[in-house]
Amino acid sequence: MSKGITSRSEDYSQWYNDLVIKADLAEYAAVRGCMVIKPYGYGIWERMQAILDKRFKETGHSNAYFPLFIPKSFFSKEASHVEGFATECAVVTHYRLKNDGNGNIIVDEDAKLEEELIVRPTSETIIWNTYRGWIESYRDLPILVNQWANVVRWEMRTRLFLRTTEFLWQEGHTAHATEQEAIEEAERMLDVYAEFAENILAVPVIRGRKTENERFAGALDTYCIEALMQDGKALQAGTSHFLGQNFAKAFDVKFTSKEGKLEHVWATSWGVSTRLMGALVMAHSDDQGLILPPKLAPIQVVIVPIFRTEEEKATIDVFVGTLMAELKEIGVSVKFDDRDTQRPGFKFAEWELKGVPLRVAVGARDMQNGTVELARRDIQTKETVSQEGLSAKIESLLDEIQTNIYQKALNFRDSHITEVNSYDEFKEILESKGGFISCHWDGTVETEKRVKEETKATIRCIPLDNKVEEGICVFTGKPSTQRVLFAKAY
Amino acid sequence: MSKGITSRSEDYSQWYNDLVIKADLAEYAAVRGCMVIKPYGYGIWERMQAILDKRFKETGHSNAYFPLFIPKSFFSKEASHVEGFATECAVVTHYRLKNDGNGNIIVDEDAKLEEELIVRPTSETIIWNTYRGWIESYRDLPILVNQWANVVRWEMRTRLFLRTTEFLWQEGHTAHATEQEAIEEAERMLDVYAEFAENILAVPVIRGRKTENERFAGALDTYCIEALMQDGKALQAGTSHFLGQNFAKAFDVKFTSKEGKLEHVWATSWGVSTRLMGALVMAHSDDQGLILPPKLAPIQVVIVPIFRTEEEKATIDVFVGTLMAELKEIGVSVKFDDRDTQRPGFKFAEWELKGVPLRVAVGARDMQNGTVELARRDIQTKETVSQEGLSAKIESLLDEIQTNIYQKALNFRDSHITEVNSYDEFKEILESKGGFISCHWDGTVETEKRVKEETKATIRCIPLDNKVEEGICVFTGKPSTQRVLFAKAY
Repeated sequence: MSKGITSRSEDYSQWYNDLVIKADLAEYAAVRGCMVIKPYGYGIWERMQAILDKRFKETGHSNAYFPLFIPKSFFSKEASHVEGFATECAVVTHYRLKNDGNGNIIVDEDAKLEEELIVRPTSETIIWNTYRGWIESYRDLPILVNQWANVVRWEMRTRLFLRTTEFLWQEGHTAHATEQEAIEEAERMLDVYAEFAENILAVPVIRGRKTENERFAGALDTYCIEALMQDGKALQAGTSHFLGQNFAKAFDVKFTSKEGKLEHVWATSWGVSTRLMGALVMAHSDDQGLILPPKLAPIQVVIVPIFRTEEEKATIDVFVGTLMAELKEIGVSVKFDDRDTQRPGFKFAEWELKGVPLRVAVGARDMQNGTVELARRDIQTKETVSQEGLSAKIESLLDEIQTNIYQKALNFRDSHITEVNSYDEFKEILESKGGFISCHWDGTVETEKRVKEETKATIRCIPLDNKVEEGICVFTGKPSTQRVLFAKAY
Repeated sequence: MSKGITSRSEDYSQWYNDLVIKADLAEYAAVRGCMVIKPYGYGIWERMQAILDKRFKETGHSNAYFPLFIPKSFFSKEASHVEGFATECAVVTHYRLKNDGNGNIIVDEDAKLEEELIVRPTSETIIWNTYRGWIESYRDLPILVNQWANVVRWEMRTRLFLRTTEFLWQEGHTAHATEQEAIEEAERMLDVYAEFAENILAVPVIRGRKTENERFAGALDTYCIEALMQDGKALQAGTSHFLGQNFAKAFDVKFTSKEGKLEHVWATSWGVSTRLMGALVMAHSDDQGLILPPKLAPIQVVIVPIFRTEEEKATIDVFVGTLMAELKEIGVSVKFDDRDTQRPGFKFAEWELKGVPLRVAVGARDMQNGTVELARRDIQTKETVSQEGLSAKIESLLDEIQTNIYQKALNFRDSHITEVNSYDEFKEILESKGGFISCHWDGTVETEKRVKEETKATIRCIPLDNKVEEGICVFTGKPSTQRVLFAKAY
């Protein structure tokens, strides 16, 4: 099997694209900037959804569903929100097609909408317009709602999973009686995302705050988790926004407090998207294909039989039947690849490409010796092990692989946070090594914009665990009280 | 608690609407014809999704995701398909808004799309355009894919869940090497739907075929399940289509067969939607509120404490804690409603409205007597039972309720299938009794259309288990070989 994947060193960006397509994760659709998520890719996304959904419910949230379309006028109600989203949205203007009489299907101009509808790029406006009807008193609060949905942002330059016109995500939208409670909610959901990224995706993340310039349009504070990819570029993997009373004011959502006062409601919103699929691929995979952490792999173990005669096959089948039953019993997802249309070498390459964490090969000689060959995808080692106690061995190996993948990403990330104390050093590190650059910044939007123009690096976040430290801005020489993390980013 | 629900006898349609809104299932959104599915309603839909999704996977299907937008030209490729869907669709014509300088947000005319995009009303066209790239040989077949998605059909008259501009559904799209295999798939999925409707929704259904006139636009054969609502109107609860080679021909999807011949691929598609929520409500509920079958109820058991002193409350709490642990252990979903802001009577009425199958009330006297009061929602009985063996009793009662709800609906349905042998009788039964009317029909589209115009009744289906029977069409007197089922329908 020829994989046809460009190597990372040759062209990282092309490697990513090749991998996403060859490993059957996704492909570009016939519609500009949109993607088709293929069954194998969607299987990973489904596992992400299931695990996150459980976390959301454990923290008291329920799912609901709000309309795909948002009336244009809603958009304009929150000033910074419309600025942030109006320039990249899909607009529905008509509600009918017709035959023009010559066999062509054309838009029916008689069916023009009075008010255009925007395909949601995010749902704060339609949701806060709805919440107005749900909230009267403090007894109706908090509202802890999440929605799994598709959203559309008209991107000019797209990349599979990382930036597509339509993407899938979840968006939590909560309403609270107090500022403090809303801030705690935003922080809590950031923690949920961080725990998920680290324990499930095996991607270490830095929890931080965005600067004013990078904040969500309409938020008072945007919390984020930032991950590092193997090419030294950062990727924002999730955000959680403290929205203050901005949307409550824009949509006139008030409640009667315990003390009988009429007050505006406090809000948060938070989301992660199919972008996480891109982070997953870029954080771990290699030139041979995907490397999936066992906790997300749709297939954790693949078993490949190697035989010449039907008799040999029959013996292997019996053994594999028992092994599979044992593995399923302990919750391991396993596939027996006994296709007779492909040779073992082809199968090995295919499952390597698709990132299956563990491969078990069983041959006729193995059956005589009571052994199998185990191959780990993450470090590409093979070992011959006894058939006895095999399922327990596999279970513990899967844990080990999960830990190892995380540790490797963590080592890489930690060795790519560089403290610098001058702009020259900043530029030198940015070009030679990449990664996060920790440096003093004077806290102004102007400086941030200038650095972005000059170097393409942006402030990824102000880490939550930052220490206060006297210093001088490496760009302007002005005083600064803390370091922030710059990086080039996806 | 004043429920404010119109009674069924007074105004069935208003009763339905009141119930959907008051029971917190859904409400109309600010966008014309669209709905907000509220957390309680969405919880029921999530259970439907989880159970169906499991069935789909057990029958070999995987989920994937295809774009929301369909290029206008795709639509025109299958002639009957475009006719069926072009007249009710949302059309995206622009991709940007801008500020007009006077503070108004307007559509940016410079951002007009070269080709308009249709918000998917169904995805056959975009999916078959994609499958062309996935299929080369018989080894690539079958493709068994499902997608959970939102779709949009621009309906002029809408009703919550039953007919809304945007709705949620699943659509299976499969590709096969032979006609026979595709027909078997379409039939298999109809069986999955029927089993789900009867065993989970507790709604008996008739499996049948649609007439040519009622077929899906682009199908060679449409199979359906038809349910009966309490007002005697039928509701199509799911459809499964044998599409022949229509879409493969329209999108040029061919494969090399085992014999080395190039052939067009055979197709099916099948779907159920949030419409099932409407069926669920209308099939079972009463003037007091929802009646949910236990297998779908987000809350199967609600426990309401009745006490005067904190001491009494403390004793009840201990008992309830143990009971809840036992119930959760056996997979029963239970809620302890110990809100101190509402009185027991209010809580009783609220959970009755929301259709919780079983209510457990525990008072101070119960604690002395070692009893609780159990109230069944379906038949509105109360009984005092021992606290001993209570969780086992609850478990078996939930089964009994599920069976009883189904049996009641089945009795109603069976007593509302009336054989008639003349048009007068047909009209009389249709007006006086409603339900399904079984009669001979001459098999022509003209007669079917005429009857629809004159009576509003349509042919719901030709039952799959129909017996061949010589007869004469009650409308035209022409010969007929079988009876079909007419009804007024949602």
